[in-house]
Amino acid sequence: MEARCSGIERNSEDGGSKALAPDEISHLALDIGGTLIKLVYFSRNDSWSVDDKGAKSPKGDSPLRVSCSNLDYPILYGRIHFAKFETIKVNECLEFIRSKKLLHGGCWHHEAPVSDKNVIKATGGGAYKFADLFKENLGLNLDKEDEMDCLVSGANFLLKAVHHEAFTYMDGQKEFVQIDHNDLYPYLLVNIGSGVSMLKVDGDGKFERVSGTNVGGGTFWGLGRLLTKCKSFDELLELSHQGNNRVIDMLVGDIYGGMDYSKFGLASTTIASSFGKAISENKELEDYRPEDVARSLLRMISNNIGQISYLNALRFGLKRIFFGGFFIRGHAYTMDTISVAVNFWSKGEAKAMFLRHEGFLGALGAFMSYEKNNYDGLMVHQLVEQVSTSASYSGDKIHSSLAGDLNDSESIGCSVYTT
Amino acid sequence: MEARCSGIERNSEDGGSKALAPDEISHLALDIGGTLIKLVYFSRNDSWSVDDKGAKSPKGDSPLRVSCSNLDYPILYGRIHFAKFETIKVNECLEFIRSKKLLHGGCWHHEAPVSDKNVIKATGGGAYKFADLFKENLGLNLDKEDEMDCLVSGANFLLKAVHHEAFTYMDGQKEFVQIDHNDLYPYLLVNIGSGVSMLKVDGDGKFERVSGTNVGGGTFWGLGRLLTKCKSFDELLELSHQGNNRVIDMLVGDIYGGMDYSKFGLASTTIASSFGKAISENKELEDYRPEDVARSLLRMISNNIGQISYLNALRFGLKRIFFGGFFIRGHAYTMDTISVAVNFWSKGEAKAMFLRHEGFLGALGAFMSYEKNNYDGLMVHQLVEQVSTSASYSGDKIHSSLAGDLNDSESIGCSVYTT
Repeated sequence: MEARCSGIERNSEDGGSKALAPDEISHLALDIGGTLIKLVYFSRNDSWSVDDKGAKSPKGDSPLRVSCSNLDYPILYGRIHFAKFETIKVNECLEFIRSKKLLHGGCWHHEAPVSDKNVIKATGGGAYKFADLFKENLGLNLDKEDEMDCLVSGANFLLKAVHHEAFTYMDGQKEFVQIDHNDLYPYLLVNIGSGVSMLKVDGDGKFERVSGTNVGGGTFWGLGRLLTKCKSFDELLELSHQGNNRVIDMLVGDIYGGMDYSKFGLASTTIASSFGKAISENKELEDYRPEDVARSLLRMISNNIGQISYLNALRFGLKRIFFGGFFIRGHAYTMDTISVAVNFWSKGEAKAMFLRHEGFLGALGAFMSYEKNNYDGLMVHQLVEQVSTSASYSGDKIHSSLAGDLNDSESIGCSVYTT
Repeated sequence: MEARCSGIERNSEDGGSKALAPDEISHLALDIGGTLIKLVYFSRNDSWSVDDKGAKSPKGDSPLRVSCSNLDYPILYGRIHFAKFETIKVNECLEFIRSKKLLHGGCWHHEAPVSDKNVIKATGGGAYKFADLFKENLGLNLDKEDEMDCLVSGANFLLKAVHHEAFTYMDGQKEFVQIDHNDLYPYLLVNIGSGVSMLKVDGDGKFERVSGTNVGGGTFWGLGRLLTKCKSFDELLELSHQGNNRVIDMLVGDIYGGMDYSKFGLASTTIASSFGKAISENKELEDYRPEDVARSLLRMISNNIGQISYLNALRFGLKRIFFGGFFIRGHAYTMDTISVAVNFWSKGEAKAMFLRHEGFLGALGAFMSYEKNNYDGLMVHQLVEQVSTSASYSGDKIHSSLAGDLNDSESIGCSVYTT
């Protein structure tokens, strides 16, 4: 599967912009969280192009051009790429950026002040914490964007611009949700990183951080490492997939001698107390299978996030809850547990929705923020949104095709064309 | 400190009731939870008596008498006692009951059917799970009362009948709260046992279980045992008192290079991710002090319960949140964290309140339920409530004095007198 949304490199009339050579990389943006560094960048990709009927053209054809506000732009095709690194291995990230020859900046307009050339957009706490490190190692200045602004901007972009971005997940069934762009707001955005932020989103740039919880992805990974000696987050997730939480969780049936507590709708299989069976004197940590411990932990944290999210959605009368952040990683059991929690606590009234690019909301938001500073060369945000939300535009307006799905290599193909 | 509320043994006109000898025990009631068995019983205590002016009389004086509905009752003084056992050591509880010579029942009216003689009131899931065990070992039938009914009945009793029962705890300051009995309802009752139940209480017997969480006392003790190898819940609590959670929790300042995230009111010392620092590759479980682990765990769970409680109070517009259950155990740091969480999430609008007899709500409720079945010999519930809530009663009505505080030996002294 391959999704195409819009990316554009502007070639202004004064000829000032340096065109990107194929596969050259630009506009790198970072989201440096407590656990992970998320990285988004654009590369021109000449291997295909799409005409105004959506048909692919062979590599090497003359580029189409875009007219907008009396300016004439070449249409360039490319991809938005995604990458991630562990924050404790920040040096690997530095090395990656160095290898991409981005030393002279995310912004390459030759008329920009020298200082701008060495600027890359960054968000997350690490944009502050590691500012000196990036400066000293790569000569790059991190231009800091607010973390919550970026999350919202990234989520809004994805929800409007990328086809089949949002989906529900329940009982092993993934179902894509058709988002009506005119009925998107308000929604609750739950970003599960090391910690969890919950944002009530009312529009572009209009939002409020209404809640959060300190029991998040960092808790799963931190506690999980201590309890299972796993070496990576993914290993821990994989382990949890094979486990049985009933070995270690205290269920309603364990307290009620196998019975339901039906008066209050609590089935015998409902978890009464996460890790509650571990109070037994007879067993030490070593006596439990790491798989079971990992599963209990994942279920405890997913369920808790689902519950707190629902309570906040309820508080503000929000119909939709979108879950993002790297904790999820498309992991079936995680999504299933969050969905079940939202369904359970809302008595079926609310549904959890997930985002295919869940982990990159903040980084995408930082990437979009190049535009607002009037750096040349990146109009992807505005263009994509205009086009994807307004099929009726015509004449000298810019339109974009959105077709297909995200491919597995974690990049989004981009194209823009005129009518 | 010593609190006296009302207990009474009725000596009916037909002379049918057998009076209790001093220190004899009656009306034992149980709350058998997933982690702990809580036990409440009444014993006559002749060591003091109080006349209608509230003055103490020496032991052995003739008992005062109470007139009510043309019946004449001797006033007996006694105490309500509290005890607890770990559920996994249920045999210790059986032995304790055997030693108290309660084999012939919580109810001792000699005219009661034989089956009633061997009945004790019990609530909690264990009343189902261990019914056969009690029958086989002690010949006792457990008369099952609904767990939530009992919690509410116990809490209402304490809030109305016992002086200085409720208090706030913040910054190391305990402050008793004067409860206006006419303005008690509605309130949110949060009972933190192995799991957590949240009840919206609207009156005597009028309530709804609105929420709960599976992250409760069983989680603290279960995870705590696995992580620290502590041998008891109290040891784990004690350990947490000496720890520093900042060693293992990821704070906002850890992500933001020591800075606050002030735009959204997050101080650098706010926990961003519980156990989030444990993602570091360099440390194993053994490299952390158990004290620090215990403290992080306590803080994570207390904070989470405080937050979910507040969100539910908010949902129903409840001004008061009372926290009970054995998780708290009067532990300063636990209460402080719950209070801080409620204060933080409510932006100072709501206050957490605690109950001195926090752990025995369910058991007290089961104890009170003897009355509703018209077993003879126990009118403590009704009488206490009448008296403590109605200072204007006179003539043939029954009044009670409430003076002093709870003593440390976990029993409540009781007295009733006439006007």
